[in-house]
Amino acid sequence: MTQAATIVTAAALVIGDEILSGRTKDKNIGAIADFCTNIGLDLREVRIVPDVTDDIVAAVNALRARYDYVFTTGGIGPTHDDITADAMGAAFGVEVYEDPRAIELLLQFIKPENLNEARRRMARIPRGADLVLNKVSKAPGFWIENVIVMAGVPSVVQAMLEDVAPRLSTGALTIAETIEVGNLPEGTYAAELAAVAMSNPGLSIGSYPSVVDGKFHNQIVVRGKDGALVAKAVAAIGAFVSRLHAERV
Amino acid sequence: MTQAATIVTAAALVIGDEILSGRTKDKNIGAIADFCTNIGLDLREVRIVPDVTDDIVAAVNALRARYDYVFTTGGIGPTHDDITADAMGAAFGVEVYEDPRAIELLLQFIKPENLNEARRRMARIPRGADLVLNKVSKAPGFWIENVIVMAGVPSVVQAMLEDVAPRLSTGALTIAETIEVGNLPEGTYAAELAAVAMSNPGLSIGSYPSVVDGKFHNQIVVRGKDGALVAKAVAAIGAFVSRLHAERV
Repeated sequence: MTQAATIVTAAALVIGDEILSGRTKDKNIGAIADFCTNIGLDLREVRIVPDVTDDIVAAVNALRARYDYVFTTGGIGPTHDDITADAMGAAFGVEVYEDPRAIELLLQFIKPENLNEARRRMARIPRGADLVLNKVSKAPGFWIENVIVMAGVPSVVQAMLEDVAPRLSTGALTIAETIEVGNLPEGTYAAELAAVAMSNPGLSIGSYPSVVDGKFHNQIVVRGKDGALVAKAVAAIGAFVSRLHAERV
Repeated sequence: MTQAATIVTAAALVIGDEILSGRTKDKNIGAIADFCTNIGLDLREVRIVPDVTDDIVAAVNALRARYDYVFTTGGIGPTHDDITADAMGAAFGVEVYEDPRAIELLLQFIKPENLNEARRRMARIPRGADLVLNKVSKAPGFWIENVIVMAGVPSVVQAMLEDVAPRLSTGALTIAETIEVGNLPEGTYAAELAAVAMSNPGLSIGSYPSVVDGKFHNQIVVRGKDGALVAKAVAAIGAFVSRLHAERV
């Protein structure tokens, strides 16, 4: 890699009281993180806010100013607590209107006589936004400037991510390699790992403990845009991990 | 309830590249949300930031100014990527030093001859902080002003939450009731639900669709501090849900 890798950044904004109360355990953050990593977006920040217009507006304005893309989830259904479209209109200073393209989509799964006022809410889109389609519910999300507004139901979010993927400007993929360290304590390899990290400022090197069957189990992950650099660091780390295991026996 | 209920707010700050890359699926946010709900804290916002000092400092300063408590997870181990203690020192403008109380705790599970420089990092605590104990790893978290700094491993977070729980000033519990709506579409009850929500500004009323076996399944949740108000709203909602089900048959 002779040129600097292109970095395209992203943030996620999860909207919903149900996540903050603990009632619903979020699954969309992990899915958006995987999606970004797989297509070459660097997810840099996530926020979770309640169903409160001012909080949504403040968060989306902070995130869209700082990152290339913002993915939001939640709050675009037909009920009174679905306030995301109006909050986005407020954030962008544009009118939210009943979009005829969205009405057409809704009519694919709702009979005209059943398209009541509540359901028409799902067609309320900020002016200037593109629609984000999904094959699960038909009810669209939307894309305004660099913000992609999606539903909250994980299977619908997945369908919407697939819809927008081909239209995103992505950057260099991040290569990630995991070194299994097993039961070698972090404190025994921290100094040598720090030395590898210090001499590789272009890489993100992390040590991750977890508890498996009541015992600590560690992994080291090396991440970067340059595969050759990642491989070299992995080799250096693998060498001292092997040596430390051998010394313990 | 004749007096206004006491509201004590909280936020969570999850620190770690591994969550943003998708490699680790966070379990601490849901656990902190449940913890807050169970003891009478209102969790109002969550942020996830990378292992970058400036990002951690900016996030913790924004959150601690706005909420009564901030719970952080991640970045307090012995490796170079564990920068949370230093970031908190920077955020609060205080020195981070090797705390003799923390050294004493570490010596409960590390032999003195093995207490190397990396492991001593786990005893680096911002001056003025209290220690947060945990029975899983002994390595302490800390509590500085209104910010509670915890590890990233879920079982350690759980132990640390149990340690701090008795020392938190909590508010009124939130009562939450769920009404199973089943396959009644949101669009059929949205107007009546909005009417109940409008006449109960002190309650948070949400409608939550999920997809079960490929079919939408809805629940309505009523949340509030006043049990009598919650019960009244639940009765009103239950009445129209029953009527709508009957009308469909």
